[in-house]
Amino acid sequence: MGKKPKIVVLGAGYSGMMTVIGLQKQLQYNEAEVILVNQHPYHYLTTKLHEPAAGTRHHEAARVLIEDVIDPRKITFIQDKVKEIRPKERAVDLVNREEPLTYDYLVIGLGSAPETFGIRGLKENAFFIRNIDSVRMIREHIEYMFAKYRNEEQRDEYITIVVGGAGFTGVEFVGELVDRMPRLCREFDIPREKVRLISIEAAPTVLPGFDPELVQYAVEYLEKQGVEFRINTPIEQCDEDGVILKGGEEIKAATVVWTGGVRGNHLIEEAGFETMRGRVKVDEYLRAPGYEDVFVVGDCSLVFNDEGRPYPPTAQIASQQGSKVAKNLIALIRGGKMQPFRFDLKGTLASLGRHNAIGIIGKRKVFGSTASFLKWANDLRWLYTLGGVPLVLRKGFI
Amino acid sequence: MGKKPKIVVLGAGYSGMMTVIGLQKQLQYNEAEVILVNQHPYHYLTTKLHEPAAGTRHHEAARVLIEDVIDPRKITFIQDKVKEIRPKERAVDLVNREEPLTYDYLVIGLGSAPETFGIRGLKENAFFIRNIDSVRMIREHIEYMFAKYRNEEQRDEYITIVVGGAGFTGVEFVGELVDRMPRLCREFDIPREKVRLISIEAAPTVLPGFDPELVQYAVEYLEKQGVEFRINTPIEQCDEDGVILKGGEEIKAATVVWTGGVRGNHLIEEAGFETMRGRVKVDEYLRAPGYEDVFVVGDCSLVFNDEGRPYPPTAQIASQQGSKVAKNLIALIRGGKMQPFRFDLKGTLASLGRHNAIGIIGKRKVFGSTASFLKWANDLRWLYTLGGVPLVLRKGFI
Repeated sequence: MGKKPKIVVLGAGYSGMMTVIGLQKQLQYNEAEVILVNQHPYHYLTTKLHEPAAGTRHHEAARVLIEDVIDPRKITFIQDKVKEIRPKERAVDLVNREEPLTYDYLVIGLGSAPETFGIRGLKENAFFIRNIDSVRMIREHIEYMFAKYRNEEQRDEYITIVVGGAGFTGVEFVGELVDRMPRLCREFDIPREKVRLISIEAAPTVLPGFDPELVQYAVEYLEKQGVEFRINTPIEQCDEDGVILKGGEEIKAATVVWTGGVRGNHLIEEAGFETMRGRVKVDEYLRAPGYEDVFVVGDCSLVFNDEGRPYPPTAQIASQQGSKVAKNLIALIRGGKMQPFRFDLKGTLASLGRHNAIGIIGKRKVFGSTASFLKWANDLRWLYTLGGVPLVLRKGFI
Repeated sequence: MGKKPKIVVLGAGYSGMMTVIGLQKQLQYNEAEVILVNQHPYHYLTTKLHEPAAGTRHHEAARVLIEDVIDPRKITFIQDKVKEIRPKERAVDLVNREEPLTYDYLVIGLGSAPETFGIRGLKENAFFIRNIDSVRMIREHIEYMFAKYRNEEQRDEYITIVVGGAGFTGVEFVGELVDRMPRLCREFDIPREKVRLISIEAAPTVLPGFDPELVQYAVEYLEKQGVEFRINTPIEQCDEDGVILKGGEEIKAATVVWTGGVRGNHLIEEAGFETMRGRVKVDEYLRAPGYEDVFVVGDCSLVFNDEGRPYPPTAQIASQQGSKVAKNLIALIRGGKMQPFRFDLKGTLASLGRHNAIGIIGKRKVFGSTASFLKWANDLRWLYTLGGVPLVLRKGFI
């Protein structure tokens, strides 16, 4: 029994969960010891966090208790925070655990951290759509400012919301805000037209790199809902009063949410792996260069396409990586052969509030309620993967 | 038509509403011109404000749109704020109206303002259960601090709530907080036992002046629900970090709600009426001394009982005053004789959350669900007085 290989998975994001769920489904009870380490007792659906952040959906819909979906006879869950990864010693130090966690195989799926590109004051004064705690905070902050606007002097900046970055998260978040505003304004006796929603993007277009026809559809829809776009306009500074744009213009706003980019977890660099912008450029089996026993997945990994360009970090690639790592770990344990990872892009969808979305499925462009339905179906499929029909029924319709 | 007497009623609280509703029911269409002036488009139920403040009930349940209950053919409603009362010129200046409002009869029901007894920093750093805007702010502030506790450093003061004053409002508010906490803690992933609710009272007892047996019942019930009482303990100072008690002890709390007392509206003193602590000591017909055409009702008035002690300002006395003033105004208009005001104390009830209360009805003490039911019935009766069965059905069960 002591000779069972020990697999440690760090992080219960899309990739980490897919790894342990894959192992749980395919491993026999005594083939390996599998340990999952995560800071919170739950997995959260990063692709849905913009909804509880805007307050259009309860955050319970965006998280799943780990104990509800793992089989404790196959997976041991440790709720703790990783302090240090020491790949040369095959050990991981946790914050609340004296002895290090040793492993035969390590899977690192520790997710990303906000990238602020050196913009002054952003880290201190902006909010980030990052995890359950942070989006609950954004929702409460917006409501608090609305309450202040009514209860104190009616200062316009209390009901001005700036969203920095108009990539997928930024656009999806603005879409949710647009859906939320009429109800929120009624709740706080504030005329809707007083509220400003401003989307600021440094690149020359919204959703940089995305299909121009879909971009135009999204912008026209959101502008009709009262969103102001400031494109081609980098933010120079963020302070307590709002943001200062390149050129000096100041926008006063009590709420600034930054969605402008992510980078790899700092623990990756600190562990001594070769990194690019905080990510590990993994080999074809998703291993860290120089380590046959360390797999890096999700936002901490960097995978290049055939043209030599990195794939953007998405839930889709993360879950495919987790699935592949689970298969390859089983191959290693059973003395089989590993398969290289190849990303299969099934499509891209961005929601624009509850009843609208845009996207590309295969080569087909989708708009409106069709796209919205596909995104919803996608969420349901992920819940099904995690916890089968019971989880879909419990979470899919909150 | 130009000779119709003109009645101006300032304030849509219990007394002001009771005056206009009384006039509306008893006056013929062309007997008088009646104008109601109020800052907000709604009347609010001051005796219920502790519920939306704690978040146990929506604030919509505690307010009634004025236009829903007045007959515009009999009462003209002006939404505006009073700037100055000039009783010698029979005129009232409003903030957003150039020409003054003149009157033949004036009814002043402008309510109260918080009395801070000179405690340093209270005005700046504490919240007050005052009106719809302020209680919405308290609810949001508490939630915001809970969100901060989770999202930032877990500092205990974020989830410490100090309630200054353990009179009726203070005790009722603490009772609602106790009801709210389990749900709030679940919402923010905070263990209930981490949250501190502290009730601080300068007098030697909770509910000073109230029946000792009922006081004991209330204190034992609330202590069992985790409330800490600091009795006989004046607050010396309130700052951004919390409160400092007499003797120097500091209690760190991000939320301080002051319920320790009220005084008359500052406009009363500024108008040159004789006042005691901001209230007008009215004559037996509720008129300001020296003015036959000015009635003062509700929290702005001071009425003494047979032992020469002032009645406390309550909704009960306010609505009885409004009712009497309406009758006397009709007598004046029709050339009849005015009746002196006599307060008829029907009883006193204080809620302890949703399912418990204490009180005295006549000479009978009531506890628990019986008292709770009576308080609920009382609220319904007021809604019925304002807007009949339709309003009871719309508001009474929110």
